[in-house]
Amino acid sequence: MVRRIFTESLSRGQAFENLRTLVTRHPGRLSGSRNLADAIAWAEATLNTLGLDRVYKQDVKVPHWERGPGETVVMLHPGGAEPLSALALGGSVPTTEKSGIVAEVIEVRSLDEVVTLGTTKISGKIVFFNRPMDPAAIMPRLAYSGAGDQRSRGPATAGKYGAVGALTRSLTHANDDFPHTGGTTYPPGGPKIPAAALSTVAADKLSATLAAAAESGSTVRVAMKINSRWLPDADSHNVIGEIRGTEFPDEVILIGGHLDSWDIAPGAHDNGSGVVQSIEVLRLFRTLGLKPRHTLRCVLFTNEENGLRGSSAYVSAMKAKNEKHVLALESDSGGFQPRGFNLGSTQRDAHDRVAAKWRALFEPYGITSFVKGTGGVDVGPLLVQGVTVAGLRPDSQRYFDLHHTTADSLDKVNPRELQFGAAALTALIWLVDTQGL
Amino acid sequence: MVRRIFTESLSRGQAFENLRTLVTRHPGRLSGSRNLADAIAWAEATLNTLGLDRVYKQDVKVPHWERGPGETVVMLHPGGAEPLSALALGGSVPTTEKSGIVAEVIEVRSLDEVVTLGTTKISGKIVFFNRPMDPAAIMPRLAYSGAGDQRSRGPATAGKYGAVGALTRSLTHANDDFPHTGGTTYPPGGPKIPAAALSTVAADKLSATLAAAAESGSTVRVAMKINSRWLPDADSHNVIGEIRGTEFPDEVILIGGHLDSWDIAPGAHDNGSGVVQSIEVLRLFRTLGLKPRHTLRCVLFTNEENGLRGSSAYVSAMKAKNEKHVLALESDSGGFQPRGFNLGSTQRDAHDRVAAKWRALFEPYGITSFVKGTGGVDVGPLLVQGVTVAGLRPDSQRYFDLHHTTADSLDKVNPRELQFGAAALTALIWLVDTQGL
Repeated sequence: MVRRIFTESLSRGQAFENLRTLVTRHPGRLSGSRNLADAIAWAEATLNTLGLDRVYKQDVKVPHWERGPGETVVMLHPGGAEPLSALALGGSVPTTEKSGIVAEVIEVRSLDEVVTLGTTKISGKIVFFNRPMDPAAIMPRLAYSGAGDQRSRGPATAGKYGAVGALTRSLTHANDDFPHTGGTTYPPGGPKIPAAALSTVAADKLSATLAAAAESGSTVRVAMKINSRWLPDADSHNVIGEIRGTEFPDEVILIGGHLDSWDIAPGAHDNGSGVVQSIEVLRLFRTLGLKPRHTLRCVLFTNEENGLRGSSAYVSAMKAKNEKHVLALESDSGGFQPRGFNLGSTQRDAHDRVAAKWRALFEPYGITSFVKGTGGVDVGPLLVQGVTVAGLRPDSQRYFDLHHTTADSLDKVNPRELQFGAAALTALIWLVDTQGL
Repeated sequence: MVRRIFTESLSRGQAFENLRTLVTRHPGRLSGSRNLADAIAWAEATLNTLGLDRVYKQDVKVPHWERGPGETVVMLHPGGAEPLSALALGGSVPTTEKSGIVAEVIEVRSLDEVVTLGTTKISGKIVFFNRPMDPAAIMPRLAYSGAGDQRSRGPATAGKYGAVGALTRSLTHANDDFPHTGGTTYPPGGPKIPAAALSTVAADKLSATLAAAAESGSTVRVAMKINSRWLPDADSHNVIGEIRGTEFPDEVILIGGHLDSWDIAPGAHDNGSGVVQSIEVLRLFRTLGLKPRHTLRCVLFTNEENGLRGSSAYVSAMKAKNEKHVLALESDSGGFQPRGFNLGSTQRDAHDRVAAKWRALFEPYGITSFVKGTGGVDVGPLLVQGVTVAGLRPDSQRYFDLHHTTADSLDKVNPRELQFGAAALTALIWLVDTQGL
């Protein structure tokens, strides 16, 4: 059966054509946007073509932030003025003056360095966080986590010491001119300063200019203009499709990904791939005539990128209905060649059990890594509810080259690799459904 | 030490910058071309920057085929004329008439089908070989082998039954408009007919047009024009760089790839990646201060694509000198994320021994697959000389999307993945050198 699943997925898969429609017609699916609303309608219509037992939406109120037009970051130095490739961080406040702000730049490598420098050195300046992701890290995700505090908490920290703006080096190993956006947060009550990510090329240029200026005793200023705005929470939805279980209709096996993306991103790998793979799991069950014993539920979450309200709403509804979940499986690490799964359970080592039972079935497909984990950002919260969670682990070296950029486009996804992932998800679900965890 | 090798490779690797130079300055490195000669000069100069003990060239006479200008394949059908994306197969004879040939097309799925149809049905026609690579194959290389006879022997077989030309479906899983060239051969004494590969999109279009024409009782003709020519054998070279062994200077560990590429291809994955990884192995040894006990020899072979004369010349020289080789390792499967090695030995199961000794050292880097094999096309002939051969096995799903096309360009190679491969090669060599096979 595992072989049949892979053969069907590789020979007649529809995930890539679905992805083409999703990311070319509905790119930039940020919460509150028209594009996300259209993508939700597309997802519902697409699920409705599969002849499922039930397709419905779950209402979710989501944060609504807009970038606005006319963003710029310009480096001003003794030699002249130079635009830097930049993107406001998601959630950033706008620059207050209509003309933007202009201030001297100070480069730091960490939040601790801001604390050490203190108000005397930081006040009135734009703080430039420039610690790169560690190139020697084997898993890029670890390098991402290791540098990510600069984006998520750097601006708030800099603001606390009187900075007027913040720039952060894009979170990527790539050396190119694509800026990578992503969320930043300000703790309640603290100062909020405008913040943008620089491409790694722009960050290196700014850093070199600062070094040269320091040599000659001069300074470098940057002009920043951000016209973002926060709007009232918007209506949105998780989109859900189900095949009713033949033996245990009240017990759920969940497969999901998130429909939203950053505003500037086509969102092909993050997370169009997870969306179309989740839909493909249902299609493969249908096409192969597999009737799941447990209810197989595809959940396309809203608002993963800047709020996680879709996941929260799902968990609330699940708790309210006292619904049992056998497994909650997520695909949100890109549509690359699958290499394994992460699995987590509060009761036992799910990854060891799954590896012991089924590793030999996955090995012919190069799927050999079963590690402990928490599934993914959307299903992770189900773990503390006692649910076994899991996440697909695709090859990861290229993910952060594209993450949260305009370059996260259809041409970066290989149709076969996407279908391998869909088959791997389907196979794991079929095994859990028929043989138990 | 394995960790140090990976850290240096990922943090300060030079393979990608070398690749940039090779494929942007010297694309289309076909045997006999000026571009290959320039690439050979570049390779020698690059090896000379590493402070090796010896850099030299081995003379090789290579076949010299040129595509010539003005190639075209045009489909003529009741509705009109339509150009088809095509490339002459390497080694194809030209169309004899200056204006090209025009003939009716007959579609087949196999060489056997040509034999069955026989002269009555084949004579005077252009035979169109249209069996796709099997999408359900897990390893694309197996699907490639499974369909490859159409390209390598299809035109000669069709010629035997009186065909005037041959078209072959490109050997790829991709559904796009890039034609893939590659070698075709005519057995001595048999008829030689002009042959070209169609892109998969063009092949599907031709096939659909033939089906529609058959319905309506009409036929489809194709006009082909190929202006290729064979020239006298040309001078070329294998380029070799060595670090002399401290304990066993007369015993060689070989690392290599091939410098030549098809004429229309930048040759980034095939095989620029193997070339720069082989060079990088030497650089890593030098930078890390590693002094190999055996002589470490980087061999950049010429003429892998259409003759294998570089490999043959190397083997002849090795036999003439009665030179002992401990290991001959090749990288010629693309610069993708490494997943393992193939290993072959006439005396014992090298792959099992290597896995047993060192698998645990490679596993943290996702390198887990050690299988039986014959190294690669260039080092394979050393196996029958009693040498243990090996080949790097990178992720393979995207390789044949690019293989022998104009799209095999620098942007398809990820710098980190390339450096992972260089580190894996270096680590295996260091282990074999210090601990024996």
